[in-house]
Amino acid sequence: MAKRSFPLSRVYTLLEPGPVVLLTTDGRGGPDAMAMSWHTMLEFEPPLVGCVISNRDWSYGRIKRSRECVLNVPTAELAEQVVGCGNTTGAEVDKFARFGLTARPAKKVAAPLIDECYASLECRVVDTRAVNRYGFFVLEVVHAWVDPAVTAPRTLHHRGRGVFMVAGETIRLPSRMK
Amino acid sequence: MAKRSFPLSRVYTLLEPGPVVLLTTDGRGGPDAMAMSWHTMLEFEPPLVGCVISNRDWSYGRIKRSRECVLNVPTAELAEQVVGCGNTTGAEVDKFARFGLTARPAKKVAAPLIDECYASLECRVVDTRAVNRYGFFVLEVVHAWVDPAVTAPRTLHHRGRGVFMVAGETIRLPSRMK
Repeated sequence: MAKRSFPLSRVYTLLEPGPVVLLTTDGRGGPDAMAMSWHTMLEFEPPLVGCVISNRDWSYGRIKRSRECVLNVPTAELAEQVVGCGNTTGAEVDKFARFGLTARPAKKVAAPLIDECYASLECRVVDTRAVNRYGFFVLEVVHAWVDPAVTAPRTLHHRGRGVFMVAGETIRLPSRMK
Repeated sequence: MAKRSFPLSRVYTLLEPGPVVLLTTDGRGGPDAMAMSWHTMLEFEPPLVGCVISNRDWSYGRIKRSRECVLNVPTAELAEQVVGCGNTTGAEVDKFARFGLTARPAKKVAAPLIDECYASLECRVVDTRAVNRYGFFVLEVVHAWVDPAVTAPRTLHHRGRGVFMVAGETIRLPSRMK
């Protein structure tokens, strides 16, 4: 996808609605991608994101070692790949090869962008104090990429056990909220 | 709404898709409600939820004092009330009166359920270690209520500045994911 740099001050608009993301890491055996829905914004700018990675996940050791990742936001066309990534482990499967995902080099981190995702957020781990308790990593988004052609992304929102809500219509209300 | 008790083990299916919630607290001057999108599941069961409440929010002092709240999940019919709650402060406005919301007594906490919301999660604060850094409160859901008639809730997902995505169609894929 034809992604361009996106202002860090607007990153919250991508994650605040709660889409499932594909978190990519680099490490031994090449790039890996895990499906993740447990994330929240923590600060607008610089954008800080908190996310949960279980110590049972293959990504756990990799992000602890590399202290880097990319949050890639898929849309409904990628639903099968998202579930595929969620149901396999990088310990056994090269997910990029298995699910036909294309790794592109990032600008500031070694973890790859997923070309098929309309948005990708390059992140560095900045706080691991809640990792032992909750697997909760605090990430700083250091560069963001979005395909400007995608104005109403049909993001996927997990309701459990492979059921996803697909982003629907957009409504706009007068608001002073950021 | 005709809400019934809902299994705590399934609470993650309500919050994982990332809906905006109305967080209610009890305190001096009566009940209050704030709009909040910065939340994430931290554990399935007992359900733990992490959420960000800024020290500039009226709710901040109230939840620190009471250590209780309710997360109420509104649907699209309540969009104006949600934006109203987001654009006013409980320091000046009785939001329940102003926006025509109905407070109902909860079972285990003093903060009220919002009757007009299809789901309400009674919560106790269980960890404040990341409050000073991020305004990040860890909540345990101690009782959950859902209207079983609402099977495909048209939840609201904030994209910033009063723009909301409304939950769209549901898709279901074979999955071993929880």
